[in-house]
This record gives sequence, structure tokens and C-alpha cells, in this order.
Amino acid sequence: MSTGKDFSSDNASGAAPEVLAALGRANGATAAAYGDDPCTAQLTERLSDLFEHELAVFPMFTGTAANALALSCLAPPFGAIFCHESAHIYTSECGAPEFYTGGAKLIGLPGAAARIDPAALSAGLAELGKGVTHHFQPAALSLTQATECGTLYSIEAIRRLTDIAHRADLKVHMDGARFANALAASGQTPAEASWKAGVDVLSLGLTKNGALAAEAVIFFDPTLAEDARFRQKRAGQVASKMRFVSAQLLAMVQDGQWLELAAHANQMGRRLGEGAAKLGIALAFPVDINEAFLELDRTVADRLRAQGFLFHPWTAEPKEGSCRYRFVTSFATEPDDVDGLVSTLARALG
Amino acid sequence: MSTGKDFSSDNASGAAPEVLAALGRANGATAAAYGDDPCTAQLTERLSDLFEHELAVFPMFTGTAANALALSCLAPPFGAIFCHESAHIYTSECGAPEFYTGGAKLIGLPGAAARIDPAALSAGLAELGKGVTHHFQPAALSLTQATECGTLYSIEAIRRLTDIAHRADLKVHMDGARFANALAASGQTPAEASWKAGVDVLSLGLTKNGALAAEAVIFFDPTLAEDARFRQKRAGQVASKMRFVSAQLLAMVQDGQWLELAAHANQMGRRLGEGAAKLGIALAFPVDINEAFLELDRTVADRLRAQGFLFHPWTAEPKEGSCRYRFVTSFATEPDDVDGLVSTLARALG
Amino acid sequence: MSTGKDFSSDNASGAAPEVLAALGRANGATAAAYGDDPCTAQLTERLSDLFEHELAVFPMFTGTAANALALSCLAPPFGAIFCHESAHIYTSECGAPEFYTGGAKLIGLPGAAARIDPAALSAGLAELGKGVTHHFQPAALSLTQATECGTLYSIEAIRRLTDIAHRADLKVHMDGARFANALAASGQTPAEASWKAGVDVLSLGLTKNGALAAEAVIFFDPTLAEDARFRQKRAGQVASKMRFVSAQLLAMVQDGQWLELAAHANQMGRRLGEGAAKLGIALAFPVDINEAFLELDRTVADRLRAQGFLFHPWTAEPKEGSCRYRFVTSFATEPDDVDGLVSTLARALG
Amino acid sequence: MSTGKDFSSDNASGAAPEVLAALGRANGATAAAYGDDPCTAQLTERLSDLFEHELAVFPMFTGTAANALALSCLAPPFGAIFCHESAHIYTSECGAPEFYTGGAKLIGLPGAAARIDPAALSAGLAELGKGVTHHFQPAALSLTQATECGTLYSIEAIRRLTDIAHRADLKVHMDGARFANALAASGQTPAEASWKAGVDVLSLGLTKNGALAAEAVIFFDPTLAEDARFRQKRAGQVASKMRFVSAQLLAMVQDGQWLELAAHANQMGRRLGEGAAKLGIALAFPVDINEAFLELDRTVADRLRAQGFLFHPWTAEPKEGSCRYRFVTSFATEPDDVDGLVSTLARALG
Repeated sequence: MSTGKDFSSDNASGAAPEVLAALGRANGATAAAYGDDPCTAQLTERLSDLFEHELAVFPMFTGTAANALALSCLAPPFGAIFCHESAHIYTSECGAPEFYTGGAKLIGLPGAAARIDPAALSAGLAELGKGVTHHFQPAALSLTQATECGTLYSIEAIRRLTDIAHRADLKVHMDGARFANALAASGQTPAEASWKAGVDVLSLGLTKNGALAAEAVIFFDPTLAEDARFRQKRAGQVASKMRFVSAQLLAMVQDGQWLELAAHANQMGRRLGEGAAKLGIALAFPVDINEAFLELDRTVADRLRAQGFLFHPWTAEPKEGSCRYRFVTSFATEPDDVDGLVSTLARALG
Repeated sequence: MSTGKDFSSDNASGAAPEVLAALGRANGATAAAYGDDPCTAQLTERLSDLFEHELAVFPMFTGTAANALALSCLAPPFGAIFCHESAHIYTSECGAPEFYTGGAKLIGLPGAAARIDPAALSAGLAELGKGVTHHFQPAALSLTQATECGTLYSIEAIRRLTDIAHRADLKVHMDGARFANALAASGQTPAEASWKAGVDVLSLGLTKNGALAAEAVIFFDPTLAEDARFRQKRAGQVASKMRFVSAQLLAMVQDGQWLELAAHANQMGRRLGEGAAKLGIALAFPVDINEAFLELDRTVADRLRAQGFLFHPWTAEPKEGSCRYRFVTSFATEPDDVDGLVSTLARALG
Repeated sequence: MSTGKDFSSDNASGAAPEVLAALGRANGATAAAYGDDPCTAQLTERLSDLFEHELAVFPMFTGTAANALALSCLAPPFGAIFCHESAHIYTSECGAPEFYTGGAKLIGLPGAAARIDPAALSAGLAELGKGVTHHFQPAALSLTQATECGTLYSIEAIRRLTDIAHRADLKVHMDGARFANALAASGQTPAEASWKAGVDVLSLGLTKNGALAAEAVIFFDPTLAEDARFRQKRAGQVASKMRFVSAQLLAMVQDGQWLELAAHANQMGRRLGEGAAKLGIALAFPVDINEAFLELDRTVADRLRAQGFLFHPWTAEPKEGSCRYRFVTSFATEPDDVDGLVSTLARALG
Repeated sequence: MSTGKDFSSDNASGAAPEVLAALGRANGATAAAYGDDPCTAQLTERLSDLFEHELAVFPMFTGTAANALALSCLAPPFGAIFCHESAHIYTSECGAPEFYTGGAKLIGLPGAAARIDPAALSAGLAELGKGVTHHFQPAALSLTQATECGTLYSIEAIRRLTDIAHRADLKVHMDGARFANALAASGQTPAEASWKAGVDVLSLGLTKNGALAAEAVIFFDPTLAEDARFRQKRAGQVASKMRFVSAQLLAMVQDGQWLELAAHANQMGRRLGEGAAKLGIALAFPVDINEAFLELDRTVADRLRAQGFLFHPWTAEPKEGSCRYRFVTSFATEPDDVDGLVSTLARALG
């Protein structure tokens, strides 16, 4: 496989062959609709083993829906949800969390490299003031691991935030759109990276990881999930032929496929980061996973584009001067793809 | 293929081989995410040809979401949506239309064989009284073709209803969860069955028809679609790798696959209906498509179940006496499957 | 006072002098805003005494808001609320309950004289099927006492319904827009008519009763009220100078004013009903409180109108033939007002 | 009248005698319910004269509801509403705008003295990017005049912001909770301060000004108001005896009462500010209307409280050191009240 000159996003890649093969295997005989099928049952079982915890699992089609459904089980319509100001739920979901929760407020917090500053969380909680009728009521904390800047929280950093949250009676959500990348990079077990670190609900994203369209909301506390299936249904997120979503998820987690694919994507990311660094290009953030943020002059970026490379500016792109650009690798990126980019970069800089 | 003893629903079947093959073809090189891919563009073009009309097309994952999204573009939060009292949106979507519209009211109308009685629509409109501040405001009519009872509206019957609706300034939605079955049974063109009959927005369902998870909201009036992409996004219904949804839809409609599969399912339905009728079993409704509703004694139903057959009661199942049971065939049902059911029925009756 | 020829509604009347006087008394020194004032505290205390129960009390501006707020504390967005098909929440609030609950569904049940038929409630519960993902989940029963037809439920009839509801884990709301009329007519104590009969939350309406704009949501179970103040605030229903709402409520209930005013209104209603009956006019319902529903020929109604009388048709008004008309009296109606109507009726019939 | 030692808020005051007198006058004969009464008609006429413009007027009970209703007519559920980060709608309405709009996002902008920085508005618009599916769509600008810090925008400053807004196709809302104070202080006409400066919808607040509970949403563009009465009804904000709300509003604006009362409150505010300044106390903002923000040491504040004075900290109150405190005067504040505060301050500082 190859992603050629496309570094726009990991969801520009297609699906891993194993996932397509699993769809073929899931096809055939009839199966009960709406999740009462053996494949979905097997998925829950497999994930429970992997996470070493009893789970309530809800297969979903998109990460946006997974995040919004999870949050709607944690926050009332008058609830406040704390997140980083660069979080996907805050910047890029066109109000899905607000929609699913019925109007809850997302409060964007600062913090370097897309990691929430614990002091900012404490200050935000103090400012709202629990019980004040005029204010949104503190309800949830949403963390993104790996972050939007391709960085990782340490377990200690997560624990610090979830401790503050739990002491204030907040529930903790983790947006794991690139959870597998985080696991592959950190070597943590799924359990260590989630409930053991204080996460109550996880949006497990496997689409960027290599599936066609398959995510899961995973509740570590089943009492939080009581409303979930009704909310999922009214959101139009209960697949009638759910086995085809579950089969994708199962194919990914069954034999460690998710981690292998993520490890490869991460390796390509690092290769890209190291190649760029050798050229003297500044990296905005450490390349912990499969995303590299390069500080490039606008003219350099334009030369890359002229060669057919695809990538997004991360900050407002100026007419002149430098800007931060995001380059994303995926399970399908080949070393040659990265090397092609780096050598073109070298020429563009020259 | 075969559906064996499973007549529970057409969504208990897997996917048509052509759909899986199309997923494989859609895989490979990278493609722009969120619908900016060539496959999605091609889909819109192909559907516009098929429907002989300029279209705004929104690929979706589920029929529930397609219906709810369509209705949210037609009705304000204080709007009333008229539908049949057996409509899927009225009985089986756990409030998705209410959720997506922000609180609109569905008004269930009576009518034989799941077809709305035009007089009931007129009466319902009169009762609400347009402009009365205390009342929900008439906003939309939603028709289901083929109906929930596996019957068809004639074009004239649809026209009668859409005329009443348009004269009252309502917009018209069609729930086409089994639209292909309706086309295959009636011989109508897509255009004749939709906008030429007064339909403004169509939920085109291809999942029951043979896809994995692929539906489309089709607007014949682009001005109605202005909000649609934002509403779709906040509902978590914009696939990041949308090509995989579009590819399914395209595979179905490209070379008439949808009609072939639907025609087969319909033929199996009729075979079932005719077989049952020969046994002297009363059919609750004419078998226009792939659903047969049989009046069976509870003891007969129990004997079928004991043999492993799957099917649902349509009305409340009594302890004793007869009840109406629904049997559904699909693209995957084989004549032998039907014949096996009919011969078991014969023995169960005996 | 007098209501002259106006029998359109009890909210066409102004306010009782005692209420205006109370506003004057509540004026003067400053008082804490948003309900932290002594008058509001006194109100809760007084109501707790009257209802012989610990209460959570929320003063509100309108009955529509009171009903909607109460229901939003009982039903989730995917909940079903059972009520009579003529209930104000079902027919005349432009979707306020749907709005406040975030999309819950009101299910209108039949029953003679606007009283819910217990069998219909049981059937409705059975049809929904608790736990079925596709269905709205049974959440609440809403009763109206006195009913929309000016009739009363007996305590036994209420108890029968609330028992069915509680056995199915529903919470029970009572729309008491004319609660005082019901008390005055039945001689029941507030406690007997509410929590002792199985009511969990009461919308106590005192505006029709003689206030300017003052209602209260009364929770008999404080745990149900936990969200109420936040929901009330975001609905814009927390008066900044709340003492002026509380003062109205207090003036009404303090010294039995509400019952005196209601008793008078009821007496005027009965006088009207008896007068009409003597003229041979059919009464659609027994005149239990301050509303009489007369079966009149359209021509008779037109003659009354020509004389300046105001009243509403209750059913669709025909061009020819008879129709059911509603005549409402209030605390301000004088015997002469009623007698004037009856004698005009006599002439109009002649 | 007197507000004694209470400087907590202008809504801690009662009502102006003229308002209570007007309620008495509005009482008496029956009047059509829900706003079809002569008093409400007269109000619209009077306001149209005052504002020199055709108006759609909606009497409301609270400022929170007025703001939220107005915004719900300007922004879709996926809309973005720009406002100052200290705006009441942003900080103190427990999500009312989010609730009424169905999930729109408020974007808090910086700016000195609670006035929005035009550059921040432009930057916010650029960041959202109109038409980007992933983002909330720019829909409205909400200004507060007078501001939350008791300052005024100049007409030119307002015009600068509304020009930016209109060029970006935003509609402009003004939160006029203290609109009369702004008029009284600036000498502008109602027209100059609203539509002539680019305001499309005004929340006119008269409760703080001297009414019991009376506000109005005023649309200068009637096409924006098409949905308003249905949204008002479903919010439970349509008074059944609306004449009593309209009468309050009318009493205030009829003979310039609102301006007289506001001018008095402003004068008391300035007296307070000047008195404090003479004591060497720093004023955080110029005292443009009836609010003074004093920089006081915590120990000084505690001494005032010990003397029975009421006022709120505006920023987080420290254990030690100084903090910003808000003191509010009203129509009912007497010079002696202010002088009592100032002399106590003098002693507390000493």
C-alpha cells in the first residue's frame, strides 16, 4: 500500500485488507439485526478481555457520534464539559456534543501541546461554582489521547486531571480517535491507558486506524450507560446490520491488528519528523505518534503543493512568512512516501 | 445465497456480493475525506441521471438518520409532521425525528393497509389550524413507499396526498426504506415515483436492499438542503471515509443492481404469499413487495418457531387465537427457503 | 366585579383585588433577587403546611411553563408521557413539553369526559414495551384535575390511574390549572387531591383562579426536583424580582382566598349550567366546576354573538347544525352576568 | 423610597409606584387572553412611535427569556453567536440561549470594559470560516448596551461592530437589560441607539428599570419575527393575562417614566463613583450608568459587610489583597443611601 503524496489526514487512507476480509467473513447467513448478532456479542467479550474490565460497548459509525453519545450520557442539558481548546469536540464537530446533550456547554481550556493545564481545569471549576443557578453545572471532563497535536499525555498527567475531575464529581471521557496510536507509542495496556487512569467512558476510534467506518463507545461504569442505547437509536446510530460494524472492530482488535497498524503509522510519523528535523525544519511539537507539525515558510509550502503534496495548515496561513503545517501518516504510508516528501522538502528549502 | 428459516426482516440478510466487491474497488489510493472524494461526486451524478433531476445527495448510515435528517430540513421545532400511524418514523425510531427537528410533533393518521387516508390528512390540517399560536404548525407530510404493510400507493394516491399537502404549504418527504422494491413492483421510473408525484425529499434506503449500511437523503429542491450538511455533521452522520458509503450506493444503482435484487426479493415475497394462500391462510394485505402478513393461529406460529423459523408478530400476540405475523424475504432468499416455510406451514396447519 | 358578556375563558378576567393589594405590600424595601427573598421562603412554608408534606416549590409565570418544567424533570428526551388526548399539554402548548424535555413524546389516550380510561393507559404501556430500543420509553403520566371538560376525577379514579403508572415505574404529574376549582367542588384537602392520591408533581395554577401571572411547580418528592432550578433558569422562568410572583401565590393560598374565589366561580358555572338545562339545552358534560359545555345550534350561537357574548366552540363549528360550545365563569363573574346570558339564550332559542 | 444599604443589584429593588398603579388601572373588565388585548396593541403602537420604526413586539417576563427568544430567531442550532466574554448570555443564563436555539454556540470575545474589540470579532469570524461543514456557522452578534461593566459603547463603536457583522451576514441583537440607563446617560433617542446603529433585534429590559417583571423583544425587521410567537409559546412565555405585562411596559415608556427613573439611578451611580474617587478608591471602569466597580481591599469589603452593606465581588475574591466589587444603584436609591455608603467607606478605609 501507499499513501503517495497525501499527508492530509489518516482518514484519507482506505481500509486495511484485514478489515475488508472480515466483512466478507461476516457476510453470508442471516443474523439478528440491531446488534443482537453473535459478532457484536463476541466484540464486547473480546474488548472486555482486552480492557480487563466489564464493559458496555456501543459500536458506532463515526467518531463525532461516538464522542457526542458518550458526552450525552455524562452531562445534562445544563452541564458544562471541560476540554482542551483545540479538542475535536470543541473545534470540529459543528455542535454534535451540544446537539446530543441538548445544549450543554463546552469550555475550552488552554494548555501546551494540546494537553490541558491542570491549573486551568481547577480555575474553570472554581469559576463555574457548583450549585449556582445562573451557571452551567460542572459535569464532565473530556481528554483527547493522543492529542490533537499528535502528542501524548503521560499516565501521571492524565491521572492528575482525572483526580481533579473526580473530586469535583465530574465524569471523565476520553476521545480516543487515535487511541491505538497512543497505546503503540507508550506501550501501555488498554486498561492502563483508560480506566486505570481514571477514564469513565472511552470513544475508541478505529477508522483512522484502518477500518472503513467503525468506532465504539466503551463504558467502564455500566450505570452510566443506562440511557445509551436509546440515545444511540434516536441519533440514528444503531446499524440495522450491525454485524458489519462489529466485524470491523473485531478484526482490528482480535489479533493485535490495531496496534500493528498504529505502530506502523507512528513509525512513519517519526521518520517524517526526523527527516524534517535533519533539514533544520522546526517541529512545533514532539512527534509522539503519526502526526508531524512543521514550521514552514509559506513559499516552501506552496512549492510542496505544486509538486502534488497534500497537507493542511494548522494555524492561519499567512500570505508571507511561516506557518505551522500538519502532516499525517497512516497504516498505509510507505517509507518511500515519507522519503519522497522529505527529499522534496529538501529541494523546496534549498 | 440463502436466508434459511429466517423471515424476521430483510435487514437480517447480509450484503450483496456486488456491494462487497465495490468496497474492495473503492479501497486503495487515498481520497479526500468527508465526501470530497470522486466516488461521492460520481454517485450524485449517477443519481441525478437516474432521477432525471438536479439533486442534492447526502449519503447516510441508517434509514432512521436519513428520515430524521430529511424531516429536520422541512419542519421547525414547532412544526407538525403528518404520517401514517404505522409509519416507521412514528413507531420505531425512538424519537429520532423529534430529536433531529428539535421537538416537532408527528401526527399519526389512519388509513387502510398503511396508506394514509386523504380525508384524514385534510381533517388533521383543519384541526391544527395554521397560524394558531397554541398549536404545532403544519410543516410536512411523510409518506412511506412501499408502506409498512408491504403495500404500494398508486401514483394517483400519492398525488392526491401530495396535492393536499402542497396546497397547505407542507413539504413532502418519502420514506423509501423499500423504494427499490416499490420501483421493481410497479415498473415506475425513479422520477415517476418521486418528484413527479410531488415528493420533495426522499430517504432512499439501500441497506435492506442489499448494502451493508448505506442510505441517501435526496433533495429534489436544493433550497431545502441548505442546512442539511451542517445538520448531518452535528448528527455524526458524515462519514470520514465517505467513499465507502458512496461506493455501496453506487454499486447498487450503477447497473440496475438495486432493481434486480428488489425484484428477486419481491418474487420471493409473492411466492410466499401465494403458497400461504393456497393453504387457505388469510393474507392481511396484498403482497405487493417482499413482505407477507399472514393471519395465523398462535399454536401454528409456535409450531413454526419450534422448527426454527424466525418471524415477528405484527399485532399483539395473544395467548390463544389468531394473530397477524410478518414474513419478510430479501435479495438473498432462495425459492427453497420459501418452499421450506410453506411446507412446514402446511404441516403445522394440518 | 363583573365579567359582563365575556364567557370566553377564566383568564380573560383580571386579578382579584387581594392579589393587587399583596403586590403593593410586597413592594418597598429591597429583597434578594431570584427567589432568595423572605416572601418566597414563606410561600414554600405555607404550601408545605397546606399540603401536609415537605415540598420543593418553584414559582412560575405560566401554566404552560409549569407543566413543561415539571415534565422535563420526569421524562428523558426519549421518554413517553401519557395524557388524555384533550389535555392542554397535548393540544394547546405548541410543543412546550417537547421543547423542555428535549423531544419526549406525548401519547394521547382516550376516555369519556376528558378522563383517561385506565384500560387505555394499560394498553398504551403494553404497546410501548419497556426496554425496546426502538420505542420511546414509558416515563410519566400526566393527569388534569379538574379536566379540560370541566369534570372531576374521583379520588378512586385518580388512584386507579396512578397505581397503574407507579407499577410501571412512571412518575405522575398533575396539571392543576384549575386545581382550586377541583378542591372547592370536591371538598378534598390539597393533600388528598395530590400526593395522597399518587401525584408526584403538581402544576398549581393560580392565574385563572385570580392571580395576574402566578403558578407553581410543586414536587412532593424532592429527589425529582434536583434539576428543576437549572431547567427553570435556562427556560427564562426564574423571576429576578421573584417576590412579586410569590406574593401573588401567597395572597391566594394564605387565608383560603383561592378556595373562596374558586367556589364562587364554580357556583357561577353551576348557575349557568342549571339555567341552560332549564331551557332544555343539552349539557355535554356535568358542570363540576366553572365550565359549562352547551350543545347549541349554530344559529343560536350566532344570535348570542350578535348580542356581544363571547365564548368558544369546543368542537369544529359547522355551517349548519349543532356544535358544542364552552362557557367559562370566573371569580369575577356576577350572578347577573350569568342570568343575562341565560335570558339571552332563552330569547335566542325562541 | 430607599434602597438602604443594599447595593447588590438593581433587581433587588421593588417596583416603581407608577407601575403598580398601572396594574390597578389595567384590572377591571375582561380582556382577550394571550396578547389580543387593547393594552398590548397600544404598547406596540407606543413603542413604534418611540422607536420611529415599524416593530414586532413580544412582551416577556424575564431578560433571560427575552435574550434567548431573540437569539433563537437569529441563529440556527448549528449557528455561532458572538458576544463579549462577560456578557450575561455568556456567563449567567445557565444555557438559556443554547436551550432556545437548540444548541447554538456562544463565542465569547475579549474587549476592554466589556466592550467587544472589533478586531476580535473579525478574527473570530475568520477562524470559523463560513461554509466549513465542521464548524458552527456565523449567525449573530449580540451586544450589551449598557455593558456588564456599566460602561457605554459610543454610537460609532456600535456601528463599527454592526458593520462588520452585517458584512458577514450576521444579524445583530442588543441585550438592553439597562437600555434606558444607556439612553438617559447618552441622550440618544431610542432609534439612534438601536436600529439606526445597526441593531436588528432588541431585548428591552424594564424590570431593573422599575417594573415588576416586564421585558420586551423588539424586532425592527418583521421578517425575523415570523417564528417568534410560536417559539415564545413553546417556551411558556406567552402570558395568558398579557395585559398585566403590557401595562407595566406601557407605564414605563408612556410618559418618559423609564428615562426619568434611569436618569435618577444613573445620578446615584455617579454620586457613588465620585464619592469613592474622592476617597482615593480606584474605579475599575468609568461610571457611565448606575454601576460602580470599586477596587477595594478585602478587609475594607469585610468591614462594609459587617455594617450591613450588600454588594457583590466582580472578580474572584481573595483571602487577602484587593478585589473588584460591584455596587449598583436603582430608581429607588436615595442620595442618603449613597452618602451612607460613602461615609462608611471613608471610615472603613481609615
